[in-house]
Amino acid sequence: MKIALAQINYHIGHFENNIKKIKEAIHKAKLANTRLIIFSELAISGYPPRDFLEFNDFIEKCYSGIDDIAKECDDIAAIIGSPTINTNNKGKRLYNSAIFIENGKIQSIHNKTLLPNYDIFDEYRYFEPNNTFKIVDLDGTKLAITICEDLWYTGEHPLYTISPMDELSGQSPDIIINIAASPFHYSQANERKEVLAHNAKQYKLPLLYVNHVGAQTELLFDGGSMAMNAQGEVYEELKYFEEDFKIIDIDEMSKPITPNPKNSSLQSYNKIELIHDALIMGIKNYFEKLSFNQAILGLSGGIDSAVAFALAVKALGSKNVKAVLLPSQFSSDHSVNDALELVRNTGSPYEVISIEEAFKSIEHTMDPYFTGLKFDVTEENIQARLRAIILMALSNKFGYILLNTSNKSEAAVGYGTLYGDMCGGLSVLGDVYKTEVFQLAHYINKDKVIIPVNTIQKPPSAELRPNQKDSDSLPDYETLDTILYQYIEQRKGPSELINMGFEKEVVERILKLVNTNEYKRHQTPPILRVSKKAFGMGRRIPIVARYLS
Amino acid sequence: MKIALAQINYHIGHFENNIKKIKEAIHKAKLANTRLIIFSELAISGYPPRDFLEFNDFIEKCYSGIDDIAKECDDIAAIIGSPTINTNNKGKRLYNSAIFIENGKIQSIHNKTLLPNYDIFDEYRYFEPNNTFKIVDLDGTKLAITICEDLWYTGEHPLYTISPMDELSGQSPDIIINIAASPFHYSQANERKEVLAHNAKQYKLPLLYVNHVGAQTELLFDGGSMAMNAQGEVYEELKYFEEDFKIIDIDEMSKPITPNPKNSSLQSYNKIELIHDALIMGIKNYFEKLSFNQAILGLSGGIDSAVAFALAVKALGSKNVKAVLLPSQFSSDHSVNDALELVRNTGSPYEVISIEEAFKSIEHTMDPYFTGLKFDVTEENIQARLRAIILMALSNKFGYILLNTSNKSEAAVGYGTLYGDMCGGLSVLGDVYKTEVFQLAHYINKDKVIIPVNTIQKPPSAELRPNQKDSDSLPDYETLDTILYQYIEQRKGPSELINMGFEKEVVERILKLVNTNEYKRHQTPPILRVSKKAFGMGRRIPIVARYLS
Repeated sequence: MKIALAQINYHIGHFENNIKKIKEAIHKAKLANTRLIIFSELAISGYPPRDFLEFNDFIEKCYSGIDDIAKECDDIAAIIGSPTINTNNKGKRLYNSAIFIENGKIQSIHNKTLLPNYDIFDEYRYFEPNNTFKIVDLDGTKLAITICEDLWYTGEHPLYTISPMDELSGQSPDIIINIAASPFHYSQANERKEVLAHNAKQYKLPLLYVNHVGAQTELLFDGGSMAMNAQGEVYEELKYFEEDFKIIDIDEMSKPITPNPKNSSLQSYNKIELIHDALIMGIKNYFEKLSFNQAILGLSGGIDSAVAFALAVKALGSKNVKAVLLPSQFSSDHSVNDALELVRNTGSPYEVISIEEAFKSIEHTMDPYFTGLKFDVTEENIQARLRAIILMALSNKFGYILLNTSNKSEAAVGYGTLYGDMCGGLSVLGDVYKTEVFQLAHYINKDKVIIPVNTIQKPPSAELRPNQKDSDSLPDYETLDTILYQYIEQRKGPSELINMGFEKEVVERILKLVNTNEYKRHQTPPILRVSKKAFGMGRRIPIVARYLS
Repeated sequence: MKIALAQINYHIGHFENNIKKIKEAIHKAKLANTRLIIFSELAISGYPPRDFLEFNDFIEKCYSGIDDIAKECDDIAAIIGSPTINTNNKGKRLYNSAIFIENGKIQSIHNKTLLPNYDIFDEYRYFEPNNTFKIVDLDGTKLAITICEDLWYTGEHPLYTISPMDELSGQSPDIIINIAASPFHYSQANERKEVLAHNAKQYKLPLLYVNHVGAQTELLFDGGSMAMNAQGEVYEELKYFEEDFKIIDIDEMSKPITPNPKNSSLQSYNKIELIHDALIMGIKNYFEKLSFNQAILGLSGGIDSAVAFALAVKALGSKNVKAVLLPSQFSSDHSVNDALELVRNTGSPYEVISIEEAFKSIEHTMDPYFTGLKFDVTEENIQARLRAIILMALSNKFGYILLNTSNKSEAAVGYGTLYGDMCGGLSVLGDVYKTEVFQLAHYINKDKVIIPVNTIQKPPSAELRPNQKDSDSLPDYETLDTILYQYIEQRKGPSELINMGFEKEVVERILKLVNTNEYKRHQTPPILRVSKKAFGMGRRIPIVARYLS
């Protein structure tokens, strides 16, 4: 039996676009005499639709879209994700469903049992968990249809109290189908493959897996849909970070396969490469889906803006990324020169706009109120905010989207100016620690120098006062990033960190900085998520609290 | 039997403070020979602790706090909310528990069954739902201990599939205890009372209810703890918006009560009064819990900043609220005069700082890039952003917190400048529609004129270009607010709104404005929540989407 896997970049709420892409894939599968085509979880609406699910109008559009698609399935079967209405008189109003279509009609609806509700997931906010289990018989081949998390009943202490595959396996399925919306982080593809292999081996069944691809604001879907045999070996894998379509002959899957690294497109990636490609996709899709094509950003000559700029150039094309150098009296010569070298390396348009005059006029305006007071963080912030005014003025006048260039280390400890360098429509590096920004810079330069060597080698500085260096106020980035990673990604508390060998004073100072700067992160742009725990929707911390602060 | 209800303003994560307050209440109850004292849901940690719950250290602090409190309970019993660890080998790691303490020790733990996971609630993110039910026998009085949502199994289509009180009622309880963390919105106190009365009557049992009071950033807890008899009548009610403590003799509760309006402190409130008192508590607690005492805000002479200012003055004292008038060449005389009249009415400190010089210098800086281009929203935004620079400079230099004065109507349609008038540490009016802001102004002026009559009477204007009026670009506020309320609070879609009699074109334009401005609201300060559906943590809408936009 030939089954098509359709890995599509959906657009949340853009039913016309999603239905068009789905129909095109059905048409392609029909031309190849495919028996069944599989789309991802909540394909019809895009994922995650979030509170749009609370509007009847939105749900009606999902239903009418599915009807429309069903009509195309006269001589092909399809499995597609959509919300459906819970018709019982109890429980949440919707299910997260896989709809099985055959002969032009909905034949059965299979609801998601395990609803992830951690990190960036809020599925129990909208959906009632399933508790009935039914295999689909397609020409004698029995399909166990599951939805994403349904296969994540794993580990010694599973997060759930019921295993959907245990329930389904009693009905002797021949194959596991999993439709997913599994967002990227840099270790997710491997973890996901392990979980799928665990299921294939445990139930001794081959498995077809169809994921989303593409960015939905901060969430990046990496694709990597696949066919896996009952031994848990990858039989076919679809592309990462791109739409893809593949037809699998499932009768061939039972034959022993020669291990072939080519079978896994993932093998060619290391962590930094994954982050690199994910960020480029994230920038590209953000602009495309908002119907914008030009970005603007401030280049300081430092590493963060240089890397964000280089990624934007790769995502949007060098002519579509406008660089603005905004020197002040505190900017060193090398800052301007390094930034100029960078734009010359890409051929992007740029402007040099000094903030000195504007800074003096604000200083003059504030003079009566600040008489006799020292230059302090106030004046540093004024500079950062004037730069934001100029960048936003260009953005408003010419329709650019401002890219934010803050990294995760500084977002964590609040080393940035709210309404200043923390501005932007999208944060490119807000989930990338400073030490990883350096690694990205090296990777970007692997074939030829894009980011000037001096930008990579000089000590980081905000250049908001004479001879300022990041190391004046922060521990070295290796130490800082390790502690931050343990605290943010690994959820280690102070005593665990101290037991790991970090100095008590350093640990307490850093944790306090992280917690007291929650108010700043509350007002930052959406951050492209590349780690297991990014600032933003997946990390929910009270602002007014007194804990480790 | 005498039972004390302790209605306390907790501080999230501030264990020392919370434990101290809890012990003081125990001491007070012991002095009055009370048999049992009841605290609210998650009292030990404050509510909502959000992702702090994912740290072992945080949970250990809850446990050691409870141990510490149990030691005080040598001759009194206590019921208190805390997270506890799920010791089964399946399901989420924690329970949301009511801990029953007697003879200085934890005697039993009662877990929450119905976990709210809608609007601002995320409880299923952290907690495993309970499925075992056990009554507590205290000197022969049988207590059915429930936690907040556990009593909200209501309506024709309940959100849940199990009713905890149905389970507990089989064990013949004598009284229902409900410990809660039920946040305020202006119709919540009445809805809550109806739900409690429904339970009292259905199970023919008296009921003791203990809620939180005080603000936790955007969430406002109004208190209103109460004792209700088995007829669903309020026997005693604790204060709204204040800490309170009351001892109830439950043997007296069975006697028929003479209906007495004094029994309900709620009766004295109308909607605007509730909003007024809630906002004042919200501002006050935000500052107190962050250990700040001075606010700053920009006064435009318009109604929003005037009302926000007047509320801040009531919350913090007139000397602690610094007003800054920031006129430009587009400001009318009346703007400055109205703002001056307002500050004179309160006696607050103020400054008048013109933005003209700074605006000219930015215009001059941008001149080479804007040659030949018309004055447009860019220049309007520059003015709003320069005001923000000045306000933030004063905030940074002198340690004020900047209050944001945007209202809900403009936040909804994006009628505000990001990094300009959308700045601030806390949004006072972001959940108050423009028409309600006018009502608040009248209420504030009820005894004497604080807000100048001209501020209330003149047509609203942003004064960012000559002769600008809000009505140039927006429908009249009555229409706008009605449509927004139906769309945001009531979840009505376009066809439902058109069926209600609104023009198709107006409806579509407004819904499009709301949806395309999600990116702006993503970067706004936390908003004090007074309605059923506020912008912020309770409303989760994708930014990059194309739905009704």
